Amino acid sequence: MKIGVIGGGQLGRMLALAGTPLGMNFAFLDPAPDACAAPLGEHLRADYGDQDHLRQLADEVDLVTFEFESVPAETVAFLSQFVPVYPSAEALRIARDRLFEKSMFRDLGIPTPAFADILSQADLDAAVASIGLPAVLKTRTLGYDGKGQKVLRKPEDVVDTFAELGSVPCLLEGFVPFTGEVSLVAVRARDGETRFYPLVHNTHDSGILRLSVASEAHPLQALAEDYVGRVLQKLDYVGVMAFEFFEVDGGLKANEIAPRVHNSGHWTIEGSECSQFENHLRAVAGLPLGSTAKVGESAMLNFIGEVPAVEKVVAIDDCHLHHYGKAFKVGRKVGHATLRCQDMATLKAKIAEVEALIAG
Amino acid sequence: MKIGVIGGGQLGRMLALAGTPLGMNFAFLDPAPDACAAPLGEHLRADYGDQDHLRQLADEVDLVTFEFESVPAETVAFLSQFVPVYPSAEALRIARDRLFEKSMFRDLGIPTPAFADILSQADLDAAVASIGLPAVLKTRTLGYDGKGQKVLRKPEDVVDTFAELGSVPCLLEGFVPFTGEVSLVAVRARDGETRFYPLVHNTHDSGILRLSVASEAHPLQALAEDYVGRVLQKLDYVGVMAFEFFEVDGGLKANEIAPRVHNSGHWTIEGSECSQFENHLRAVAGLPLGSTAKVGESAMLNFIGEVPAVEKVVAIDDCHLHHYGKAFKVGRKVGHATLRCQDMATLKAKIAEVEALIAG
Repeated sequence: MKIGVIGGGQLGRMLALAGTPLGMNFAFLDPAPDACAAPLGEHLRADYGDQDHLRQLADEVDLVTFEFESVPAETVAFLSQFVPVYPSAEALRIARDRLFEKSMFRDLGIPTPAFADILSQADLDAAVASIGLPAVLKTRTLGYDGKGQKVLRKPEDVVDTFAELGSVPCLLEGFVPFTGEVSLVAVRARDGETRFYPLVHNTHDSGILRLSVASEAHPLQALAEDYVGRVLQKLDYVGVMAFEFFEVDGGLKANEIAPRVHNSGHWTIEGSECSQFENHLRAVAGLPLGSTAKVGESAMLNFIGEVPAVEKVVAIDDCHLHHYGKAFKVGRKVGHATLRCQDMATLKAKIAEVEALIAG
Repeated sequence: MKIGVIGGGQLGRMLALAGTPLGMNFAFLDPAPDACAAPLGEHLRADYGDQDHLRQLADEVDLVTFEFESVPAETVAFLSQFVPVYPSAEALRIARDRLFEKSMFRDLGIPTPAFADILSQADLDAAVASIGLPAVLKTRTLGYDGKGQKVLRKPEDVVDTFAELGSVPCLLEGFVPFTGEVSLVAVRARDGETRFYPLVHNTHDSGILRLSVASEAHPLQALAEDYVGRVLQKLDYVGVMAFEFFEVDGGLKANEIAPRVHNSGHWTIEGSECSQFENHLRAVAGLPLGSTAKVGESAMLNFIGEVPAVEKVVAIDDCHLHHYGKAFKVGRKVGHATLRCQDMATLKAKIAEVEALIAG
């Protein structure tokens, strides 16, 4: 079976590493000459709207999946004429736009921060009056890793801010006094079977995920599974989805979904019986799902900008390096380490060791 | 770091799957157009004696390693002029030839079956008279998976047998009434640090490995480590080596070494903290070695000729498929499954499930 992946970054790379042992081959469509998934499959170097190359991809593969949600709707619609695409155009349409996403949460009875659609500075001023400050203004589309958003704390922060974010459609979200950020990675098969990984506690810095710790039995696991299950069913979703929540007052408020394998699920490569990457491929290929049970206690630390010296990373017991083969760039995710330990106490000590390496 | 691999079969494929997350790239030299490692790196399609392509490989990579031991000595010597090769030419020279290998065992005080160098039918007749029957006549070089050998049970079996095996240098080995076949996979770093995986119990059929079960604490582990350690030190070996033994009367007799990652170590991908493939690459690249400790209880079953239906293999809990992407061929190793279970009782039940699929 040959899988087409729109995007050829580290998620595509890890999909290929997981799918090759299943007998799958891969083709990546990515305009970047140095797409880091390219060494593991065929690289169609073209823009995401290039219909000649999209057609070529569709002709070569059995199905198409996506490494990121900001795929142009036209791309998905075009591909869908010729080849199955997972997740569906509808799932991508919703996940791509913060307004559609939040509205779906509300419709499904999933708590969210207060939000308002912002199409002008006047909309913004009215919404701030209604929702209050602090609040966060986010572009409805194309935001990631803290890009395309601004925190509004004081009335002065609101002045001209709509133009500052490019005068594009935005969403204003009321600030949530959260006590933690958690995510649930789930996988849903073509036949509707759904499995959930353990809730992950995430730590961000400057909008970029730094640390994910897979939880032991978490009191909010069942609630999170309920919420995520509603979304998966509503979208008749196929594949892996990650759902990020704020922990607030012992409950959960929905932040956002990612209709793909997700950074907060990278620990599953070593830390679970069947990784999010293999399970995504099993789902889209119509294979039985694999176990989402944990193996030991795990955490994932991102390497941002550069990977520490390889010989130092691999010298740490219980540490598994995932180097993406990307060039140094400030703020770029270039690798991660998974720690898989016998117990939480060891895990905490090992996290400190890797953090010391990152701090350099 | 770019690694050159002589050979592009499943061992090269699994080396690349293990090395890519370490940030390594791969080039494979293999004359086969459909070399199954090719999708994971650069494929130099050329004969192993093709000096133009060997030189190209040497110029492109940081070091060269080997997927099989039957590499022509001239190839290794040629490459060694330009680039580090691991394991060394001397290790390959010994491992390639059953006479050199057995003689080294004897010199190191490692028990072996009785053996004799056979250069003619007269040598064979004399050796049979001395060693007795049953015995096994094996070509000194180029044998694998039961090829290039013949079991001699009755005097009639001896007649003209030297010519039958091609009138090439052979070794006659006395038959060993073994109670089991075990192998020890070891890894030795450039600085001499050595680590051993748990002893593996192997079951062969028609000369081809079918089942490997990683043992719980094995009474012969320490003895096997002693023997293998002697060989590794003697050869100043760098990389992974597998050593196959016969269990005889509660002790061990040396069968053969493989100067490379080995089929009986495939279980380590899921079943140990750091797989034989990653540890081989760590060793040759001068990185610290990884832990050889087990994760759960594991076994490996080979798929010979064809892989059972993928959806059935992955439907078995605790089962991890490794499909080599090779075409069907009688007697060809085309994939394997690793079972990693909580306990030995579960493992035995799961082995039966996979065996039923293979038989099915």
